[in-house]
This record gives sequence, C-alpha cells and structure tokens, in this order.
Amino acid sequence: MSKGTIYGLGLGPGNPDLMSVRSDRLLRNARHVAYFRKAGKSGQARGIVNGMLPESVIEFPMEYPVTTEIPLTDPRYNEMLASFYEDCTARLKELSDQGEDVVVLCEGDPFFYGSFMHLYSRLRDQAPVEVVPAITGMSGAWTATGDPITWGDDVLTVLVGTLPEDELTRRMSDTDALVVMKIGRNIDKVTRALKASGLYDRAWIVEFAQMPNQRVCKLSENCDGLTPYFSIIIVHGQGRRP
Amino acid sequence: MSKGTIYGLGLGPGNPDLMSVRSDRLLRNARHVAYFRKAGKSGQARGIVNGMLPESVIEFPMEYPVTTEIPLTDPRYNEMLASFYEDCTARLKELSDQGEDVVVLCEGDPFFYGSFMHLYSRLRDQAPVEVVPAITGMSGAWTATGDPITWGDDVLTVLVGTLPEDELTRRMSDTDALVVMKIGRNIDKVTRALKASGLYDRAWIVEFAQMPNQRVCKLSENCDGLTPYFSIIIVHGQGRRP
Repeated sequence: MSKGTIYGLGLGPGNPDLMSVRSDRLLRNARHVAYFRKAGKSGQARGIVNGMLPESVIEFPMEYPVTTEIPLTDPRYNEMLASFYEDCTARLKELSDQGEDVVVLCEGDPFFYGSFMHLYSRLRDQAPVEVVPAITGMSGAWTATGDPITWGDDVLTVLVGTLPEDELTRRMSDTDALVVMKIGRNIDKVTRALKASGLYDRAWIVEFAQMPNQRVCKLSENCDGLTPYFSIIIVHGQGRRP
Repeated sequence: MSKGTIYGLGLGPGNPDLMSVRSDRLLRNARHVAYFRKAGKSGQARGIVNGMLPESVIEFPMEYPVTTEIPLTDPRYNEMLASFYEDCTARLKELSDQGEDVVVLCEGDPFFYGSFMHLYSRLRDQAPVEVVPAITGMSGAWTATGDPITWGDDVLTVLVGTLPEDELTRRMSDTDALVVMKIGRNIDKVTRALKASGLYDRAWIVEFAQMPNQRVCKLSENCDGLTPYFSIIIVHGQGRRP
C-alpha cells in the first residue's frame, strides 16, 4: 500500500476567497484534517475553513499543552512542546502509513513563522509531505492599508515583537519598510521602539487582516478596542517611484 | 452610469493552481485585461494566464518604452517611465468611466515591488481600484527549497540586487534569514556580498519558482544554465525550534 501524503496547507490571511485554488480543492476533498488549537478553544485555523470541509471529514485537533503562563525561558516549555510535536507527528505518520492523506491547516504561509514547521522537520524523512504556500498575513495587512509596502530598492525588514527592545529599536532605525509580527503582549515595547526609531508616525496596525472583522488604524491615532493579538504592524517604504 | 473597477490582480508566483480563488474567478470572467510587457515580447504575466481568459476578452498590452540600455540614473529614464504610466492610467480611467471593469495582471503580490503600484498611485483618486493580494514570488521560492524561511524570533531581511555592494554586504551580515529579489545583471555583485557576509554557503537560488520549469540550486554548487533574471536568492533562518 502506498503512503498517504501530509499536506501543510497554507490558508492565507483568513479569507476563504484568498486561499489558493489548490488549497481550496484539497480542503473540499479532505478525508482527514488536523489543526492546532489552544485547550478549550475551537481553533483559529479551524474557524477559517468552516463550511468548506466535507461532512465526512475526520478531525484531529492538536491541542497545545502549554499556555503562556510558563515563560519561554523555562526549560519545561521547550520540553513540553517538543514532546507534544512528537505525539502529533506519530499520529500523522500512522495515518500516512495507513495510506490516508491528511490536510494540516496552517494560518498564513506554512514556512513563514508557522507552527507546521515543527511537524514538518520531524515528518519529512518519515512520510510524503507537501507544503502549499499561501498569501502571508503581512501581505493581507499591507494590502488592507491601501498602500504599497516596497518600491524601487526599498529594504524590507520583518521583526517579531518578542525581540529585545534595543534590538527592535536598532533594526527599526535602519530599514525603509517594516513589518512587525507576533505583537500580542509586546505591544508597549514595540510602540516604544517605533517612537525611539522615528517610525511611530508612519506606523499602521492591522487587526484580522482580510477578515470580516478587519480593522486598520494608524498607530498614532485612536485605535480604541483594537487588540494586538491578531495584529500586524506595517510601516511603508518610500522608495524611488517614477 | 457607475464607474468600472480597476483590479490590481495578484497572480502569485506563476502557477495558476496557486492563484487565489478570487483572482481565478476575476480572470475567468474578465471583459478587459491589461498587462505590462516589453516591446516585441508576449509578456510574462500574460503567459501565466494562458487558457484562463474568456475568448471575448479585450486585451490592453502596456508596452514599456524603455529598455535596460538607458541607465536608471539617466533622468530620461524616469521621465519616459512617468509619461508611460500616465498614458496607461489615462486609458484605464477612460475604461472605468465607461463603466468597464479591467483586470490588471500583476506577477507576485501587487504591493510588493510591483509595477502596478505606479498605476495605482495615479489612479486611486480617479477610479475605483481594488488590489487582490497574492502569494509572493519569495514564498514560492522558499517553499520550493523545502525548508522554512523563518523560525521563532528570526529577523528576515528582503533586499534587491540593485543596492550598492557595500550596503548588500552590511545588511546580509546582520540578519537571520535573507531574500534577495531583482537579481538579473547584479548576480556577480550579490554573490560577492554573500561571500563577504559569510552567507554564501547557506544561499539557495530558485529560478521560475512554482512553475513547470522551476530550478532550485545551492549557489555554491553547480548551477549551470540557471539564468538570474527570474530568480530569487534565499538564505534560511535558523532560529529557536523546540
């Protein structure tokens, strides 16, 4: 019996209309669908594909064992996550060995700061794995602002909000265009770095880019009620333009 | 009569299967399609949608007036391009005023180093314009390498090969993950900068990412016959991974 394929399927920024034709087709014909979620939640990725999966689909929710109460620096954090990824990998390999294809839902693009990569690195030598690229969350966000992100020979820097404040400031001070991902509880630190680097007045924050509840706001204006957990910060380049 | 909409339609890396569902639908129902091309060529963007357009579609090829013989620094270069973009804009506005929708084909993502931005900035206050984001060429390229581009808190820097060599080297020396676009005739300069910054041995070059003629090659290995004009260079981040 031939092995089934594990698809790391990029969902894009969260609007089904912006999924690729390939992702759309794989979802509508899926027999098994796997996705990460926090314990007690229905899952952000699973919510995006509501109404697209066949009724007969078999679901494999992969529930994160750790919450943000354990700091990233605690060695238990990495141990628990590694063991969790091993368990998920074992189940996916088992399905593949039985000849079953499995679609693993990935928000954004699977290879760009994605969780799927932790399964991919463990599975790639044990089962057929195919990655379906997708529109990144940051593309969704800069499109939502209504202004191009890079022109001419602009340099684009992508940072995550988890970096130390001095490194954020240093790198923000030395780029033309900027994207900041993984903002969440780092929003105050990121805001201070934007101010220190002189980019604050040009910074936009986009929440739920390309989704029905999308919000787009200049950071220096009133962004009341905007939560940073599903947000991306954008500073547009201003390069050469004939 | 209501105005027609000008769609800046992202085609993604060049594989119709990786276009968004929205782009696919707009193409298959297009009445007018516009695209850039070099004089005497059929056009890279137009080639991607072969077989997808209705037979009745009306085509508007926008032929670049300048070739690479005029250096970027020559003031005539900017003048000729600006006047060309004005002419294209006038024609698109005319169609919109007549109530006609027009699909403008954009390779990759329209707002990421795209040519459409030069029409967009002129049209946006004169006609309804909608931008459809897409999978970037760089996503197509890093997916093709079979390795994730960014992990954990990796910094990603995107550079264009047209930058001065010392700036390429300086920025390459100070990033975790790297993408270099617009390589073309800059390949030797880019290669020297990769060597000077210590990234050369980890650099991949991807030609025609996600297309039938895709080639993926480590830069330090034998990349015979690979032309840099439709290529992207990728250096993967090596960040935290549980």
